[in-house]
Amino acid sequence: MSDPKRIEPRTLKGFRDYPPEAMIPRERLIDTARRVYRSYGFSPIDTPALEYLDILSGKGSDETDKQLYKFQDHGGRWVGLRFDLTVPLARFAAQHVGELGVPLKRYHIASVWRGENTQRGRYREFMQCDFDTIGTRSIAADIETVLVIHDLFRALGFEDFTIQLNNRMVLTGLLERLHLADRATAVLRALDKLGKIGPEAVAQEMIAQAGLSAEQAQDILQLSKISGDNDAVLRQLDSLVAGSETGQSGVAKLKKVLDGTAAAGMSPDRIKLDVSIARGLDYYTGTIVETFLNKLPGIGSVCSGGRYDNLAGLFTSQELPGIGASLGLDRLLAAMEELGMIEKVSTPAPVFIPFFDPNRLADYLRLASSLRASGVGVEVFPDSKKLGQQLKYADRRGFRIALIAGGDEFDRGVCQVKNLQTGEKRDVPLASDAAEIVAEVKRILGS
Amino acid sequence: MSDPKRIEPRTLKGFRDYPPEAMIPRERLIDTARRVYRSYGFSPIDTPALEYLDILSGKGSDETDKQLYKFQDHGGRWVGLRFDLTVPLARFAAQHVGELGVPLKRYHIASVWRGENTQRGRYREFMQCDFDTIGTRSIAADIETVLVIHDLFRALGFEDFTIQLNNRMVLTGLLERLHLADRATAVLRALDKLGKIGPEAVAQEMIAQAGLSAEQAQDILQLSKISGDNDAVLRQLDSLVAGSETGQSGVAKLKKVLDGTAAAGMSPDRIKLDVSIARGLDYYTGTIVETFLNKLPGIGSVCSGGRYDNLAGLFTSQELPGIGASLGLDRLLAAMEELGMIEKVSTPAPVFIPFFDPNRLADYLRLASSLRASGVGVEVFPDSKKLGQQLKYADRRGFRIALIAGGDEFDRGVCQVKNLQTGEKRDVPLASDAAEIVAEVKRILGS
Repeated sequence: MSDPKRIEPRTLKGFRDYPPEAMIPRERLIDTARRVYRSYGFSPIDTPALEYLDILSGKGSDETDKQLYKFQDHGGRWVGLRFDLTVPLARFAAQHVGELGVPLKRYHIASVWRGENTQRGRYREFMQCDFDTIGTRSIAADIETVLVIHDLFRALGFEDFTIQLNNRMVLTGLLERLHLADRATAVLRALDKLGKIGPEAVAQEMIAQAGLSAEQAQDILQLSKISGDNDAVLRQLDSLVAGSETGQSGVAKLKKVLDGTAAAGMSPDRIKLDVSIARGLDYYTGTIVETFLNKLPGIGSVCSGGRYDNLAGLFTSQELPGIGASLGLDRLLAAMEELGMIEKVSTPAPVFIPFFDPNRLADYLRLASSLRASGVGVEVFPDSKKLGQQLKYADRRGFRIALIAGGDEFDRGVCQVKNLQTGEKRDVPLASDAAEIVAEVKRILGS
Repeated sequence: MSDPKRIEPRTLKGFRDYPPEAMIPRERLIDTARRVYRSYGFSPIDTPALEYLDILSGKGSDETDKQLYKFQDHGGRWVGLRFDLTVPLARFAAQHVGELGVPLKRYHIASVWRGENTQRGRYREFMQCDFDTIGTRSIAADIETVLVIHDLFRALGFEDFTIQLNNRMVLTGLLERLHLADRATAVLRALDKLGKIGPEAVAQEMIAQAGLSAEQAQDILQLSKISGDNDAVLRQLDSLVAGSETGQSGVAKLKKVLDGTAAAGMSPDRIKLDVSIARGLDYYTGTIVETFLNKLPGIGSVCSGGRYDNLAGLFTSQELPGIGASLGLDRLLAAMEELGMIEKVSTPAPVFIPFFDPNRLADYLRLASSLRASGVGVEVFPDSKKLGQQLKYADRRGFRIALIAGGDEFDRGVCQVKNLQTGEKRDVPLASDAAEIVAEVKRILGS
C-alpha cells in the first residue's frame, strides 16, 4: 500500500536522467571537446540559463517563440530559458567585446531548453557544445574551424569521417551572374528539396515560385551536377562563377581552406567540397562546414557551422563577423554507441577492493590510498558482505581489477590481484607502500 | 544615436556572465573535484533542470518555496527549476536505485536557481558540486567522505585547512541521558546562538524556551567547554555521554573516523573534533563535517556535509541511508582569489603565434599543428596586423610564450621563441617537425 503523502518519483515528459552509464561517456566526450577547443586557444565562457525574454525572442522565428520556456519571475519580469547558445553569445559579445577585445575565441558547453514536440524523439533539454571565433574576417579562422573539427573527431577515436565544405559566396556569385541575386530565398527553398524531389521538380519549382527561366533553372542546377575530387570541383566552379567577383572570391576561399588544412597536416581525403547542398546557405554568408560519419551517413551532420557577417546586430552597432560550429552531442553519442565505440561501465574507477575481512578496514583504506597516490582510481566496498556478493557488484559496475585480501592473504603478506575481464589472478606481496601491487595494477590496465 | 529596434544587451538581476578570466579557474576547480570524486569510485549523474513542482516543493520550507522559480509549461503542468541537487538526488535514487543497486556513489555538478534577495550579495543562479554515498550505514563511507574532502583540498593546492568533525549522536546521547530527547529542536535553536550571544544567554534561552532546569542547561553547555586535542576531546566526551548507548555509539564513530583517516595516511592535524557547534545538527543524523581554510576562517565552511538516515522517504518506502558533502564552489573561488591562488589569464593555451608575415600563414599553421601534436596549446592570430599590436593582445590574454617568425627568420631557418613573462628570447632552428621548438617551449613551460 502506498503512502498517500508519498510523491511518485518521475521526470517531465521530454526530460531525462543521466545515470552513470550514460553520463560517463558524455563527460568523456565533453572533456575531449574542451581539450581540443582549448588547444586552439578557445576559452570557456558561461552565460545565465535565464535571460530577459526580449533578448531571447529578439529575432527568433515563430517556431522558436512557440518552443520558448517563458514566464514572469518574482519581480514580474518576463524571462525565458535559453533555447540555444548563439543568442546568448551575441548578447555576451555585444556587452563585453569592448573590454575583452577581438578576436574573441570562445567555447560554450551548456544545456538549452525547447518545448519541442517529443513525438519526433526530441528532448526538451539538451546540451550544446559550440565554438566560435568572433571579430575577424580572416580565412585563417575558417581554416582553423575545419582543423578543430578534424582534431576533435580524431581525438574521439574516429578514423572514417568527412568534413564537407561549401561557401555561400559560390551560390551568391552564380545568382549574380544570372542577375537573380534578389531571388536567393526562393531559389534556396527549391534547392533544399533536391534530395527529396529530384532535379526536374526543383527546376519546375524554381520556374514557378522564383520566376526563373528554364535556362536559368538549369544553370542553377549545374551546381548539383558538379562532381569529382576537390581539384575537379574547383575547376568546374571556376567556370560556373566566371565573371562574378563574389563567386570567384568564394571559390578562392574554398581553395584557401583546402590548402591551409593540408598545410597543417590534415589528410586531404577527410575534406570534401560539396556545393550541391543548400543546408546552411540561408543563414551563413561564407564558409559552411558539415561533418559526416562515413559508416553512418544517414544520421546527418554531427558537427556543423559556418561564417556569418554580423553576429550581434540586434544588440550593438559594432559589426562582429565570425565563424563557428556546433557539435551534435546527443547525435554523436548515439552514433558512437551504434559503432561500438562506447564501453558500458558505470564506474569511473578501474580498481575494486572488497571489504572481505571485517577487521581489516584500515588495511583496505591504506591500500586504496597508495593506489590513488599513484593516479589509479579505487573503490572500497563499504560493507563487509559475502565476497561473492561484492564481486557481483564489481562485475555489474564494470571494474577492471579486484584486489582481494582476507585473513589468509594478510597472514601470508600478499594480496590477490584479480583481472576481472580475464579472470586471471596472482598473489602479489603486500608491502606498506604497495609498490608491487601498484605496478601489477598498472601492468593490467596498460595492456 | 541608438537604433530604436536595437535591444540593450544585459543580464537579469542576480545573474552573471562568466568571461574567460572567471571561467578558466572555475573549470579547473570543477575538473579537480571530478578527478578526486572519480578516484574514489563516485560516478557522475545528471538530472533535468526542470522538475514537476510537487517533486521540488515536496518537503521544502516556506523560504525554499518562495525562492522557487516556478511556472506552467506548454502542457499546463506546474514545473520548477531545481533549487538544490539534494531533492533531485532523492527523486533519482527513489526512481533508479532498484536497477542501479547500492552503494550508489554519485557526484553531481550542476547549476541551481533560487530567487533570493540579491542585496545579500547572493546570486540567483549558482553551481553546486555534491558527492554522496547512498545505501550504506557503514562507517567506511563516513571515513571516505572525510578523505575525499582532504584529497580535494590538497589537489586544489591548499595546505592549511581543517576538517571539523562532529556527530549528531553525541548531542542526542547527552539529551537522552538528561531525559530531554523531546526538546532537541528547541535546545538546538538556542545552542546555535552560542557564538553570538554567549553561554549565559544560551542557558537562559534553554530554560525559558525549552523548559530545561538550570542544571540541565549547564550540562548541555558542557559541550561547548570541551577542548584540547582530539584525544582529550574524546576522553571528555566519553564521560559526558556515559550511560547513553546512542551517545557512546556516536563517540565510537568519531573515533573510528579519526582512526580510519589516519590509517589512510591523512595528517591528523587536518581533522579536528568540534562538538560545540550546532550547525547541521538539525538535519544530519550521524557524522557531520565542515571544512575551514585556516587563513580565512571568517568565510565559513567551504565544504560541508553529513550522514542522513533516509534520503528519499518522500518518494519511496525503501530506506536509503547515506552520507554526502557539497563543495561551496563560489565561496571557494573567492577565497582562492583572495589568497592569490588564481592566476589571471584569459587563454587556456600557453603559446601564441603572431601572424607576422602575410604570406606565411601555411607555415604558422604547420608550426601550430606540431606543437598541438605534442600536447601544447597554441593560438595563431588570425589577422596579419602590426606585430606590436598582436603582442599586446597576447599580453592581455596572458600567453606565456610567443613564437615569432617573419621574412628574416624564415630566411635564416629559425623562429624566435620569446618568453612573455621574462622577455627573454632565443632563435631556435625551424625544422619541419619543429622538434627543437617543441623542446624549448616545454622547457620554458616546465620551469
